[in-house]
Amino acid sequence: MAKRLHYFNVNGFAEAIRYILHYGGEKFEDVRYEKSQWPIKSVKESLPYGQFPLYEEGDKSLNQSLAIARYLARKADLLPSDLWQQAVLDAIVYNISDFWNKTKAIVFIANDPDADKKAAVKKEIITNVVPFYFKRFEEDLKSNNGHFGGKLTWADFMLVAAIEKANLFLEETIEKDYPNIAALVMKIQYLPGVKEYIAAKTPYEI
Amino acid sequence: MAKRLHYFNVNGFAEAIRYILHYGGEKFEDVRYEKSQWPIKSVKESLPYGQFPLYEEGDKSLNQSLAIARYLARKADLLPSDLWQQAVLDAIVYNISDFWNKTKAIVFIANDPDADKKAAVKKEIITNVVPFYFKRFEEDLKSNNGHFGGKLTWADFMLVAAIEKANLFLEETIEKDYPNIAALVMKIQYLPGVKEYIAAKTPYEI
Repeated sequence: MAKRLHYFNVNGFAEAIRYILHYGGEKFEDVRYEKSQWPIKSVKESLPYGQFPLYEEGDKSLNQSLAIARYLARKADLLPSDLWQQAVLDAIVYNISDFWNKTKAIVFIANDPDADKKAAVKKEIITNVVPFYFKRFEEDLKSNNGHFGGKLTWADFMLVAAIEKANLFLEETIEKDYPNIAALVMKIQYLPGVKEYIAAKTPYEI
Repeated sequence: MAKRLHYFNVNGFAEAIRYILHYGGEKFEDVRYEKSQWPIKSVKESLPYGQFPLYEEGDKSLNQSLAIARYLARKADLLPSDLWQQAVLDAIVYNISDFWNKTKAIVFIANDPDADKKAAVKKEIITNVVPFYFKRFEEDLKSNNGHFGGKLTWADFMLVAAIEKANLFLEETIEKDYPNIAALVMKIQYLPGVKEYIAAKTPYEI
């Protein structure tokens, strides 16, 4: 069944979906749209809630990055079978999502000509948001063998995707003072399938 | 195993968790905190990310309302076994969550003395946010036998919880022009377990 992922030519949670697909050895069409050409009216109107990403499998389609990632995680053996463990990972992914929701302001003002405003947003993220969440993520990874939930799962991919996007826009390496998080970023980027994908792609731009 | 749900004495997505527990006939301790007394430092610091709700089962605990709701949904037979169907419902719940994220501004300014500001926020929600999402939810329910996914699931509970909280704070009945949504609200509120819980409780206040 033909698989197709539609998203902008940028990273973010949808990049985790790409990583999961490559790690799982899935063949898929990686359809990309340039932000500079958006919105393309006919495409935007065809999306169920006007937003990317959209994942298609044959004639079925699914929106929402977390729903798509979790679905593909199960197929790539990145989701445990135990219900409580699944729920613990869901909660972690929502905590990561909360981190991202408090960080994404940096994306919206990336092209703002007011340098002071940009510096203030960046300072708030670096000083308050990152330490609050990363202290907790670091602790969790440290007590669970370097992976949320004790072994490689989709939650690991989601954190790395959030960090990669944050680093790109903050022009920082926000995980550098957190050894378990930093190790996880490297581990994901060097997974079979992911490593080759990263090596072959053009770097993302702000 | 003792079950315990910690949340404010208000509605919201955690009210869907209460409904699901009552519908499933689960015995649980419904621990409530008054907003007026918050934060209670010792309690706030004991929460993994400083936030309610927190669900406990024996000595295990879980944060994040959507993670808790999905976990309990499975136990109450409110989650299909098919993976694609589960993903479709996950996406619907995230779409509902997006609706709520664009509506919750009304909660934050509920006690703002500036009546014009409150009226402007309310107008934006009623004029733009509700129609955008509710047109899509209505269409989905209409083509699926009155339930997201064709039969009663946790997605139905989540939408009703979002509507109940929105209505309380907007002082409206936002579902009134959407017959399938309005019917779903009634259906959930009259489910066995839920009906008795609602009849016995004190109404929520702003």
